[in-house]
Amino acid sequence: MEHAGDEDSKMNKINAKKLLKRNKLYDAAYELFTTKGMTETVIEDIAKKAGVAKGTFYLYFKDKYDILNKIIYRKSVTVLKQAMDATESKVKAENAGMIDGVLFFIDYLIAYFKSNKKMLRLIHKNLSWGLYRKILADSDDLLEVKGMLQRLTDEYRTGGVNNDVIEKNMYIIIELVSSICYSSIILEEPYTIDEIKPTLYKTIRKILSK
Amino acid sequence: MEHAGDEDSKMNKINAKKLLKRNKLYDAAYELFTTKGMTETVIEDIAKKAGVAKGTFYLYFKDKYDILNKIIYRKSVTVLKQAMDATESKVKAENAGMIDGVLFFIDYLIAYFKSNKKMLRLIHKNLSWGLYRKILADSDDLLEVKGMLQRLTDEYRTGGVNNDVIEKNMYIIIELVSSICYSSIILEEPYTIDEIKPTLYKTIRKILSK
Repeated sequence: MEHAGDEDSKMNKINAKKLLKRNKLYDAAYELFTTKGMTETVIEDIAKKAGVAKGTFYLYFKDKYDILNKIIYRKSVTVLKQAMDATESKVKAENAGMIDGVLFFIDYLIAYFKSNKKMLRLIHKNLSWGLYRKILADSDDLLEVKGMLQRLTDEYRTGGVNNDVIEKNMYIIIELVSSICYSSIILEEPYTIDEIKPTLYKTIRKILSK
Repeated sequence: MEHAGDEDSKMNKINAKKLLKRNKLYDAAYELFTTKGMTETVIEDIAKKAGVAKGTFYLYFKDKYDILNKIIYRKSVTVLKQAMDATESKVKAENAGMIDGVLFFIDYLIAYFKSNKKMLRLIHKNLSWGLYRKILADSDDLLEVKGMLQRLTDEYRTGGVNNDVIEKNMYIIIELVSSICYSSIILEEPYTIDEIKPTLYKTIRKILSK
């Protein structure tokens, strides 16, 4: 029994070390991709910055595009979950309706991208928006987030609006918000995000109102 | 007098020849860019396809990016003017209001891009959307089109809505339509353009309604 316990703790230590190395690779790659750019970064730079051997990189990732996609995916899942938690607390605390809930969720994401322009630029430059949306739509890690959005829009469904209409409206909102985020946060042109936000939110209210 | 007339007709012939050569270069470049792609196309290919000497290319264009930008600009101006003419006829014939006019204009552009996916792909792949919008916004060739949109929205202005609100709503509509065009015409995912059009137009009606 004691022996098996020792084995377990040994495995845990090895796993913890592995995880640490992988995370160091993630951090190093993110730093390099957002400063030097994808083209200028080679695997050797990433391994060096992470303080691991080049071979270690290939234990976890196929190539630099693989680690890029994983970085974007991890960060996206994290922020979407944070936005969900914040929205759920808000909705509970204030007994907020669907429209306020959806707007709070969107506002959380906009605030995140506003203070993480690097991340937004990384997504835009290297991933097609269609692919990015598809990856997130298919993700099992986001079932909770999708469940929350589903619950938020239940108000609609019980009001007799059919599912197809709700899904198309959600798609319209996602396209609109992501397009505005790019133009107004990255290009800051023709309006900054703070200038256009009131009109954007008013539009979303109009889309969601019956 | 006769002599001067001869000179004129000579000049006209030279100019017509020049124009013809330039147009052949435009056609050849468009054909190559949309089939082989920008990276794979060199100036020599364009000149050869157009049936002119390589040096002739440089009489009109700085490099392949210059001719690309000019192609996109020319085609955009042409289709925007066609859309304007069609909209003006429609509005006059049916005494249509602002919202119907704007929707007709957008519908014309969507139909164009639906049957000219190549053009849409060329714009998307090679020009940032921000830059494209800026070039069109600054263009003197589009003063007429802008005038028409201005007149269409006059209904709004006389109704007491201020200019800033109108401009922001127009910006929201442009972002939305171009983003949906890309996802639904090029990617055809998650909806084809015909599937999403009714929801899109309903949204635009909501945005423009007082």
